[in-house]
Amino acid sequence: MKKYCFGIDIGGTSVKCGLFDVKGEVLDKWEIKTRTENNGIYIIPDVAGAINNKILEKQLEREDIAGVGIGVPGPVNEAGDILCAVNLHWGYVNLVEQMEKLIGLPVKAGNDANVAALGEMWKGGGAGYHNVVMVTLGTGVGGGIIINGQIVTGSHGAGGEIGHVHVEDSMEEACNCGNKGCLEQVASATGIVRLANARLAADAEPSVLRDGEVSAKTVFDAVKAEDKVAMEIAESFGKYLGSALSVIAGVVDPEVFVIGGGVSKAGDILLDYIRKYYNTYAFSACKDAVFALAELGNDAGIFGAAKMIL
Amino acid sequence: MKKYCFGIDIGGTSVKCGLFDVKGEVLDKWEIKTRTENNGIYIIPDVAGAINNKILEKQLEREDIAGVGIGVPGPVNEAGDILCAVNLHWGYVNLVEQMEKLIGLPVKAGNDANVAALGEMWKGGGAGYHNVVMVTLGTGVGGGIIINGQIVTGSHGAGGEIGHVHVEDSMEEACNCGNKGCLEQVASATGIVRLANARLAADAEPSVLRDGEVSAKTVFDAVKAEDKVAMEIAESFGKYLGSALSVIAGVVDPEVFVIGGGVSKAGDILLDYIRKYYNTYAFSACKDAVFALAELGNDAGIFGAAKMIL
Repeated sequence: MKKYCFGIDIGGTSVKCGLFDVKGEVLDKWEIKTRTENNGIYIIPDVAGAINNKILEKQLEREDIAGVGIGVPGPVNEAGDILCAVNLHWGYVNLVEQMEKLIGLPVKAGNDANVAALGEMWKGGGAGYHNVVMVTLGTGVGGGIIINGQIVTGSHGAGGEIGHVHVEDSMEEACNCGNKGCLEQVASATGIVRLANARLAADAEPSVLRDGEVSAKTVFDAVKAEDKVAMEIAESFGKYLGSALSVIAGVVDPEVFVIGGGVSKAGDILLDYIRKYYNTYAFSACKDAVFALAELGNDAGIFGAAKMIL
Repeated sequence: MKKYCFGIDIGGTSVKCGLFDVKGEVLDKWEIKTRTENNGIYIIPDVAGAINNKILEKQLEREDIAGVGIGVPGPVNEAGDILCAVNLHWGYVNLVEQMEKLIGLPVKAGNDANVAALGEMWKGGGAGYHNVVMVTLGTGVGGGIIINGQIVTGSHGAGGEIGHVHVEDSMEEACNCGNKGCLEQVASATGIVRLANARLAADAEPSVLRDGEVSAKTVFDAVKAEDKVAMEIAESFGKYLGSALSVIAGVVDPEVFVIGGGVSKAGDILLDYIRKYYNTYAFSACKDAVFALAELGNDAGIFGAAKMIL
């Protein structure tokens, strides 16, 4: 019976590290810098060193450690190879193989958004469920699909890439992915600003949003103050996202949608706008899906990475 | 080592039955009538009788039989309970439990569209793949999602219910499911007729479609004859379906889309219209997904049912 595991979340500026017991209690949590220079060749040895040092520091027996789960910002195939990770300056990297050699423990790797979904299923907003769709509304829109407790990786590592599903034919600007009309362009923090600017430009109706810089936060703060223009923007956001989630329900039929990322700090009112349109469009059997806010914040990645290895 | 299995596909008018070896060769294939009277109480004993008789007739040893897989036209939960099956006049039925008692063999049950998808993965248009999305374009639009060789059942038995994903805000007629603007309303055989009638009513442009009754077949026959109006209708169909499949790709990222049902008899030209819009809207990593025609026709159900038990 194993006692411990490590959960690692490699980001573009820092690597979050967690030491867990097998029940999911955090025993230690720390960060190291992500050294992306020289095509990121230091990242794997740095992470391996951090783990080996922690094992020494805590005087852990290696046979008590189940292994190391790692989340990476890029597509990861079933073998745990990274196809590319722009923010780490990585091309193809056989992460699992390299890391196992350096630390002598079992290693698993997954895409960071998928791993975060697993974390929220384990110990966050999706706790108690096994069929979970996680949506992260940040600068972009990330997603992770969990079916029967397992991450849906996809054939090209694009499982749960719901930020880039097509939702708007009339969008003229291109998304970062190269397509036009992606969900990310209307439902991320920057997408909400895009919707807000378009609405504010449409006429001269008074709104507190005309008084300063517009952000997803100022929009939802204004919604809470019942600003009419802000409420129209929120309806537009809710229609795009609620409708898109209803389509996802018709594909994988989850028990729960967990909404996270910076935009989700708006709280329950955000869920109300999403659910309104979800209920309009979802197939009848799926209408009772639960909507929950994410609970683990930036720690979702280390929790999910740890869960991956258990 | 087991030698045989049964695949059963219960439909509203007949039950298709197949005896297979474990490699997937059909050893025998037959049908019995579906007796739906008295809330369909005869169906399970009839199917059990058919199986028991075949075991006697072929002088099979029960220990050589892996079991019986059954496809049913309705939502089926993970335990193999049928939640309802309108065409069989069934409400809730604990099919697996009842059938196992009558035949003394392991039984598994699944939704017929999902089971057909498994059959096409095993021995049809999706052979060689393990991540498959099957789309059946018949009177309605059915779907089945296979991930890592396993059917995605969904939390409410609605996994793969892609006929009822929302694709058209302006639809005023209600779908059979009660919602408006479902994929089924524009991409099924009847949906294509709806698109055709709307196009024909829009102006008086000459078309061979004005000469007789319009059907999905006459539309695609006219497309092959380069009838301009028919080609516009096919573009509209292709945009709805190709766009919807691109969204599905962003969720589960399959290797292959298998297109079946009566409409798929139009052949490769149908795939061309779908793929054109799929390629426009799909996330870059998913653009090389394969599009294939279904190959097993009405036998997909018995193949998939047999595969379920192996």
